[in-house]
Amino acid sequence: MVGIPNICSDILYVSGFKASDPVVILQNGPDRTLVVSRMELGRARAANPALKVLTPEALDLPPKARWHVEQWASALLKKTGLRKVEVAKTFPVGVARELERQGVRLTIAKGPLFPERAVKKSVEIGAIRHAQRAAVKALRGACALLGQARVDARGILHEGGRVLTAERLRLAINRILLDENCAGGEPIVACGPLSANPHWIGHGPLKAGEPIVLDIFPQDLETGYWGDLTRTVVKGRPAPELVRMYQAVKKAQAEALAKVRAGIRVASIHQGVIDRFKVLGFETRMTQGVPEGFIHGTGHGVGLDIHEAPSVGLGEAVLRVGQVVTVEPGLYYTAVGGVRIEDTVVVTREGFDFLATCPKQLTIG
Amino acid sequence: MVGIPNICSDILYVSGFKASDPVVILQNGPDRTLVVSRMELGRARAANPALKVLTPEALDLPPKARWHVEQWASALLKKTGLRKVEVAKTFPVGVARELERQGVRLTIAKGPLFPERAVKKSVEIGAIRHAQRAAVKALRGACALLGQARVDARGILHEGGRVLTAERLRLAINRILLDENCAGGEPIVACGPLSANPHWIGHGPLKAGEPIVLDIFPQDLETGYWGDLTRTVVKGRPAPELVRMYQAVKKAQAEALAKVRAGIRVASIHQGVIDRFKVLGFETRMTQGVPEGFIHGTGHGVGLDIHEAPSVGLGEAVLRVGQVVTVEPGLYYTAVGGVRIEDTVVVTREGFDFLATCPKQLTIG
Repeated sequence: MVGIPNICSDILYVSGFKASDPVVILQNGPDRTLVVSRMELGRARAANPALKVLTPEALDLPPKARWHVEQWASALLKKTGLRKVEVAKTFPVGVARELERQGVRLTIAKGPLFPERAVKKSVEIGAIRHAQRAAVKALRGACALLGQARVDARGILHEGGRVLTAERLRLAINRILLDENCAGGEPIVACGPLSANPHWIGHGPLKAGEPIVLDIFPQDLETGYWGDLTRTVVKGRPAPELVRMYQAVKKAQAEALAKVRAGIRVASIHQGVIDRFKVLGFETRMTQGVPEGFIHGTGHGVGLDIHEAPSVGLGEAVLRVGQVVTVEPGLYYTAVGGVRIEDTVVVTREGFDFLATCPKQLTIG
Repeated sequence: MVGIPNICSDILYVSGFKASDPVVILQNGPDRTLVVSRMELGRARAANPALKVLTPEALDLPPKARWHVEQWASALLKKTGLRKVEVAKTFPVGVARELERQGVRLTIAKGPLFPERAVKKSVEIGAIRHAQRAAVKALRGACALLGQARVDARGILHEGGRVLTAERLRLAINRILLDENCAGGEPIVACGPLSANPHWIGHGPLKAGEPIVLDIFPQDLETGYWGDLTRTVVKGRPAPELVRMYQAVKKAQAEALAKVRAGIRVASIHQGVIDRFKVLGFETRMTQGVPEGFIHGTGHGVGLDIHEAPSVGLGEAVLRVGQVVTVEPGLYYTAVGGVRIEDTVVVTREGFDFLATCPKQLTIG
C-alpha cells in the first residue's frame, strides 16, 4: 500500500500509525514493513513496535529519489526480493507502472485487502461507541437549544436574543463533540424543503413547522473511528404530510432494525424498507429531473471510514457478528423536505446492540 | 479523476463539490462532467452550475453496475466516445485496468494534473488567510493559558486548579479554531525531549523549562483550505542549549523568509537553512539510529491540502507570485527536544506577505 495513513484507512488499520504524509507499507507473510520519511522514524517506531520501520536512507536511495514514494516502494521490493505483490483497486496507478517497469507482477485484489476490517474487534467497537455517544450528547444539546428557542411572527427561531441559524446549531453541536475529543466536521442541520437533498448541510435561519434533519457524524480524534446518528425534528407543529413521512420512516427503521442479525442478507433488509414505503404510498421517482422518495441505501458500515463495508443495499453481503452498520431509511420530497432516522448498531448473533441510544421524537415544543 | 472530493483535493478544486462518497469527473476540452450517485444530484448541480452532472442511471448503467465507480468511469467514456485519457499518478489502478480492458488508452501525467493549483487566486488566498488568522488566535489563546499557569515544586504547570496538560491545551486551541469555523484536528502541543519527533502531538502534563512546540494547522470548514503556524515556547527559564537552538532557528527562518520572492529556486532557500545551522554548529546526523538536527524540509505549499506543491526543499521548483508556502526550519535533538518556528506566506514579486502575523517569543513568564 502507498498512501497517507490519515486518509487511506487500510494503512492506518494495519499500521496504527497516524500521519499526514505518504508512507509505503508491505505485508510479506506475517511481517509488515513500513517506509516513512526520516523525520517520522521515531513516531512510527513508537506507534507500533510490531512493524519494521525503514527510511528512504536505509533503503539506500540516492538523495533525489528520497522524495518519491514510487521509489520507496520499488526499493523496498528490491530489498525483499519479492517479484509479485497484491494491491488494492485504489492503489495509485503511477506507482503500479513504476513497479511493473521494474519487472514486478501486480495482482489487483477483487475485493478489499482486509475484509476482516468489516468485523470489529471489541476495542474498535469501544472506539465507535465513544464517537456515537458523543453524537447523542450533541444531538441532545441541539434539541435543547431548539426547545429553548422562541418563534417569531414569521416562524423564524430565536434563541439568546439572536436568530437561531443552521450555522449556530452546527457550532453548538461541534463544541459538544469537541469536548468529547471528537471532530464534528460539517454536521447536517438542514431545515425546510432543501433538506430533500440528503447531504445538504443546511444554511440560514431555522423555521418552525419545517423538518430539521440533524445528521451528526463525529470522528474520534484519538482513534480515528466514526459514529453516525440522524434525527429529524420539527419545532412547533408539523404539516400532516410531514407527520405521515415521519411515521413511515420510523416504522421502516424499526422493521429494518428488527431484521438485523448475523446471517441475514443486507438486500432483504433494504428490500423491506423499499416495500414498506411502497405499501404506505411513498413513491420513489424522478420529478422534473430530481429524484424523490427513498433515494439512498438503508445503511453502511462504520469504522475508520464513515462509509465502509458492508453496504446495506441491494448487494450480496450477509451480516456477521461484530459488524457495525447504520440503519437509516429516509424519505425526500422537494415540496416538503427530508426525513431521516439513523442509528448505528453492532450486529450480534440474535440481533443487534445500539452503540448508543437516543430518543426519537418528531416535535419539539 | 475518480475519488472522494473531500479527500482528493484535485476533484474538490475543479468541481467545487464537497462530498464524502466517490465521484467520477472528466474534463474534455472546456467541458467538465461529474458523475454522482442519484442522491447527490441536487447538491452537485447547486455546487457548480458550470458542471454537467450525471448519475449512473443517466448513463444507462444496469442496477448492479450502479454502485461501482469503475463502471461509472467506463460508461462515461463510452458516452463521450473518448478513447484516450490522461490521469494522475494517484488514479486508482483498479479503474485504470477496467478502462484499459475496454480499450481506453491511459496516459499517466508526470506531474500534477492541475499545476495551476500551486498559484492561488485571491479568493483562495482569502480562505487560507482566514484559517491562518484562526491559527494565530488559537496560538495567542494557548500562550495566554500558559501565561496564567503556575509552576509547582516539580516544575509541572497548573491552571484553573488543575494540571495543565497537552490535552487541555489542545482542546483550548481547538475550541478557538472551532469558533472561527475551522477544524483543528490534532494540533501539536509537544513538551519536553519527545518534541524531538517533529510530528509527535504531545501528551501529559506540561512542564516549565522545557520546549513546548505549538503547531496549529486549522482547516476552514467552509472552504476546505488550511493554515499552518508553529511557535516554540518555554514556560519559565529555558536551558542555555535550548536558547541557542531557538536563536538559530529564528535566525534561519528570518534569512529564509528574506529570500522568498518570485523567481527564487526553493533549493537555494533550503540550502541556506542547512548552511546556517552548520555554521552555528548544529549538526544533522543519526544518533543511535535516530535522526537529529534539521531533519525535514524548509517548507511546503498550503492550500486544499495541508502539504502540497511547491515543496521548499532540494527540488527544482522556482517560486511564483501567488504561491502560498510555509517557512519552518527546525532543530531536533533527543536530549533537549524540538524547536520549530513556522509562518505561512504568499509569494509576491518582490518578496512575500505574511498571511497573518504572530509574535515570536521563546519565554512565557
